[in-house]
Amino acid sequence: MNSTFGERFRLSVFGESHGDCVGVVIDGLPAGFSIDFDAVKAELARRAPGNSPNATSRRESDNFIVMSGLFNDRTTGAPLMALCRNENTRSHDYEPQFPRPGHADVVAAQKYGGHNDYRGGGHFSGRLTAPIVFVGAIAKQILFERYRIEINAEIASIHGETDAAKFDEIIQAAKARGDSVGGVIECRARNIPVGWGDPIFHGIESDVAAVMFAIPAVKGVEFGDGFGFADKFGSEVSDGIGFDPNGNMVFTANHNGGINGGITNGGELKFRVAIKPTPTISLPQKTVDLRTNEAVTHSFTGRHDPCIVPRAVPVVEAGLAICLMEYL
Amino acid sequence: MNSTFGERFRLSVFGESHGDCVGVVIDGLPAGFSIDFDAVKAELARRAPGNSPNATSRRESDNFIVMSGLFNDRTTGAPLMALCRNENTRSHDYEPQFPRPGHADVVAAQKYGGHNDYRGGGHFSGRLTAPIVFVGAIAKQILFERYRIEINAEIASIHGETDAAKFDEIIQAAKARGDSVGGVIECRARNIPVGWGDPIFHGIESDVAAVMFAIPAVKGVEFGDGFGFADKFGSEVSDGIGFDPNGNMVFTANHNGGINGGITNGGELKFRVAIKPTPTISLPQKTVDLRTNEAVTHSFTGRHDPCIVPRAVPVVEAGLAICLMEYL
Amino acid sequence: MNSTFGERFRLSVFGESHGDCVGVVIDGLPAGFSIDFDAVKAELARRAPGNSPNATSRRESDNFIVMSGLFNDRTTGAPLMALCRNENTRSHDYEPQFPRPGHADVVAAQKYGGHNDYRGGGHFSGRLTAPIVFVGAIAKQILFERYRIEINAEIASIHGETDAAKFDEIIQAAKARGDSVGGVIECRARNIPVGWGDPIFHGIESDVAAVMFAIPAVKGVEFGDGFGFADKFGSEVSDGIGFDPNGNMVFTANHNGGINGGITNGGELKFRVAIKPTPTISLPQKTVDLRTNEAVTHSFTGRHDPCIVPRAVPVVEAGLAICLMEYL
Amino acid sequence: MNSTFGERFRLSVFGESHGDCVGVVIDGLPAGFSIDFDAVKAELARRAPGNSPNATSRRESDNFIVMSGLFNDRTTGAPLMALCRNENTRSHDYEPQFPRPGHADVVAAQKYGGHNDYRGGGHFSGRLTAPIVFVGAIAKQILFERYRIEINAEIASIHGETDAAKFDEIIQAAKARGDSVGGVIECRARNIPVGWGDPIFHGIESDVAAVMFAIPAVKGVEFGDGFGFADKFGSEVSDGIGFDPNGNMVFTANHNGGINGGITNGGELKFRVAIKPTPTISLPQKTVDLRTNEAVTHSFTGRHDPCIVPRAVPVVEAGLAICLMEYL
Repeated sequence: MNSTFGERFRLSVFGESHGDCVGVVIDGLPAGFSIDFDAVKAELARRAPGNSPNATSRRESDNFIVMSGLFNDRTTGAPLMALCRNENTRSHDYEPQFPRPGHADVVAAQKYGGHNDYRGGGHFSGRLTAPIVFVGAIAKQILFERYRIEINAEIASIHGETDAAKFDEIIQAAKARGDSVGGVIECRARNIPVGWGDPIFHGIESDVAAVMFAIPAVKGVEFGDGFGFADKFGSEVSDGIGFDPNGNMVFTANHNGGINGGITNGGELKFRVAIKPTPTISLPQKTVDLRTNEAVTHSFTGRHDPCIVPRAVPVVEAGLAICLMEYL
Repeated sequence: MNSTFGERFRLSVFGESHGDCVGVVIDGLPAGFSIDFDAVKAELARRAPGNSPNATSRRESDNFIVMSGLFNDRTTGAPLMALCRNENTRSHDYEPQFPRPGHADVVAAQKYGGHNDYRGGGHFSGRLTAPIVFVGAIAKQILFERYRIEINAEIASIHGETDAAKFDEIIQAAKARGDSVGGVIECRARNIPVGWGDPIFHGIESDVAAVMFAIPAVKGVEFGDGFGFADKFGSEVSDGIGFDPNGNMVFTANHNGGINGGITNGGELKFRVAIKPTPTISLPQKTVDLRTNEAVTHSFTGRHDPCIVPRAVPVVEAGLAICLMEYL
Repeated sequence: MNSTFGERFRLSVFGESHGDCVGVVIDGLPAGFSIDFDAVKAELARRAPGNSPNATSRRESDNFIVMSGLFNDRTTGAPLMALCRNENTRSHDYEPQFPRPGHADVVAAQKYGGHNDYRGGGHFSGRLTAPIVFVGAIAKQILFERYRIEINAEIASIHGETDAAKFDEIIQAAKARGDSVGGVIECRARNIPVGWGDPIFHGIESDVAAVMFAIPAVKGVEFGDGFGFADKFGSEVSDGIGFDPNGNMVFTANHNGGINGGITNGGELKFRVAIKPTPTISLPQKTVDLRTNEAVTHSFTGRHDPCIVPRAVPVVEAGLAICLMEYL
Repeated sequence: MNSTFGERFRLSVFGESHGDCVGVVIDGLPAGFSIDFDAVKAELARRAPGNSPNATSRRESDNFIVMSGLFNDRTTGAPLMALCRNENTRSHDYEPQFPRPGHADVVAAQKYGGHNDYRGGGHFSGRLTAPIVFVGAIAKQILFERYRIEINAEIASIHGETDAAKFDEIIQAAKARGDSVGGVIECRARNIPVGWGDPIFHGIESDVAAVMFAIPAVKGVEFGDGFGFADKFGSEVSDGIGFDPNGNMVFTANHNGGINGGITNGGELKFRVAIKPTPTISLPQKTVDLRTNEAVTHSFTGRHDPCIVPRAVPVVEAGLAICLMEYL
């Protein structure tokens, strides 16, 4: 298994949901950067459960401790390792008797010969997004300091509804039924310099999509008009070229989401990700009983998010920030 | 610029649209494989223009010559280099006077300081998908021989229409208007073994999406129900688990497109890509005149595909095959 | 900075000499392996100081704690993170007032803008070989279990002397003078299968040499007859080919150290590394006083190894084991 | 097989000794560079055989043709592919009846199941150093333009003799006897900026050694005093620190060859490589007859270099230049 990402800015993520900890080693941080840890905590809090009635009632205390790569409150240039101890895990929630549909339980057991840590999903757990948010929070600070890059994601829709005022109600209704709902997150980034990314295999779209699909529950990624392009005429989606008052070439529209030929064009980077409904629900699902080897219908009774979309928002931002660090 | 892909099965793509050639070096081919070059030619013919009234009237003769890595008609295990000479290029078609909206003309000139080969898009051209199809054709043969893996892509829709019988008419109508249309391609693969892919950063979805976005004009990728998940309840999209007659665990549905936690689950791999309308159209578009430095409205008069979707179908299949070779 | 190594078997090393800890994340371990931690401790003890009068009087307690990737006493296939808390550090020993000749003090300060952790050499310290030995100890177990590969390094010479009985005396004499000595380590490995390694850039010699030069104080690496080849006739160093009693091709000599064209040939892998004398010595050396900005002559008074060669022996073995894991 | 090298500056080498061609794809060249092809030819001529009585009488015409990545006589930033057609090959010279001791004939046949191109060594041939010299010649020009880096290698010894005036006589004497001799090449580079390289796994020594061992016949690499360190006291090999007249820190000696902790220190980079005697000699060697399956004594009668050292000099320079390009 390979849980590393990146070439010049490299992450190596480790840990399990109900093991000792989750954490990350970061290679490629610039030396001398003063991390704003309050801002890091704020990002982690956005991802953490327990802050809203829409999220799981699990308590995950996302306190990351930096154990290397910092000296006199600044990055040293050496690998920064940070970890977060796990607390309040109730590992009997996810006993392996009934593999969960829509999760990796079955394939993980097959791939690793039954040796995977199945407690809470182990290394496959959504808890592994915590170190990603940790890294992303630092990356966002560096990107802003260097280029004034600002990254903002928000919920575009929950279960097809785009009116944010109704999101809570939709989620609570699903929860009350023992069901779950999905949604779409839209992410935008401003002030990315022209020229990041390569044509063909190493375009920004390839890199960003690769990281987005690393987020559990993401099942679709589109840039600019995305799938909407498929129904349009070329003449409707032309990103015309013109000059700004200073004589610089600019685009008169942004259907392509700030990217041409895989390369940033100076416009706003824009993409959307589809998040599937949480597969672990209280409503009965078809599964198998591994003790009796019989097909059964089972209700999963743990503490689950009825909708993971709100908690995924900071993860999407973090993922983009990590991608962009490659181009510092 | 980095136009390489893969770790164990590596491509290094080179060439320009209107230069001497396009081609590829393949590292990581198994030794002793007898390539069926008729099948390779058939794949290249699917991508080549000029075979249908819907495609560009350019003649690209996609005859690849293998110049290393073959001996006594079999692969040697050494790098296989193949190239295809360019013919019949009319480089004045794409004079740099008017950068084309929706193409990389502007960003490429900025990124490479004006030194990029702009003729026909140079290294950014869709012609670079020819070597990808070449490699994919070989990869498909190896995947079938080793695992009976079958990969098939087809057009799911053109300009929103899903009835294949109407595709030609839609494309011809757009062409007649000097316009272009996009569409969606769906790709399926059978017989992929359980357990390919890693959780988090190196899941199959990340790898496949990265390659798909390497195909010019692809602006969205979704797996299984993809963006459709966003409007569903968890209970509607449950891939239940059961037993087949031989007692093996199987899934009773496939909303996840054959992938759980980034790892193949033995089911049919299923994904869709959104293809934007060809940006180079005869209808007038806003651009700038680089000789006068004035904003203008320009009609591009070259030989262009009114819809690139049909030619992209074999490229999508090739891209998937290349991804899967990593797991041999 | 990039402190990672490997493609399929990947290490990410972190930590500082006088910081909280040193440690490593290992990606690519097979699942289900039961690590013999007593054997790991024994390897770490070989590297640890304080076990012999020839080594530094520093006490480094090399107790690595595994914090991820183990479950029910077996590897899970997920990243294994292990760290070792630092103890008994006397960071005032190495105050930055006088940069140490032969160390990275000057270049590290320049490269990282003065932000590097200079205490005890920080991330540049020889203490970072502890996680390498930790990983190597596990790798050796796996290589033995799978292929019966045995790796053994030993001291070939200390300060030119090849009689092992005199090593202690030579080292103690140097120590008494406030000086230090170097030496040569020879490493051999048996039972490596034929065919590991690639020609040209990814031969076994390239991989092994890259890891050996990662060990502080290593300044030369040679395979088989190595530099001795330079003085020989081709006819003197011919590794003739013959048949063993079972009719398998074998070599009648092994001047090439078990490698031809970068690829293992089934013979004993054999290489030697040159270790320089410890640069931190009590005898006066030319350096600069960073407080007064004056050139001075300074005696470094910390606890230093008069000869690092004995402690480097297990590191050399570990380095080879790590290289070979790439070919599992 | 993987014949690629580098991360940011990447080579992908292809071809066979007696096949159609040898060549290389270069990714990561800066755009807008005007290559001096006369200088490239001069470098290739240094490596080519047939220019001196000491080299093989084979005629290899090293005319590389650039087929991509150049436009208007400048690099475009896109991959540059160049190849050199093979001429005047007498493939019956190296019939596979008698595998050559000291070459990869046996291991290549075993590793690739007999499918490797054995003619003239195929992809294992020293002819594959021609594309390396081609790339190195370009790299040297860029390094000089950007940093005034100068790279010079020379023969330090032939068969133990360091007096250059005697090299020819030694080589001719060996040739007359049907034998061969080895030697040592020393390489120095000036004006490398301080701070290139990383500690531990990605030090300059690791990178340079990895490339040097990619050169056929190289069996040892040492930096600075190298193996000479092993016999010295620390006090003898101290690279003292002082100030130059401008107040910059400088080193008062250079036993470490311009590298500390894997990182360039601004001093002259200095290393030496050991080259083994050409293994293909006319004097009889033990080998096997693959037609009769009998152990035999055989005299190899082809046109062989009695000493490959002179032709390896430009390859060593090229290898260093390629390494350094990674740090542009």
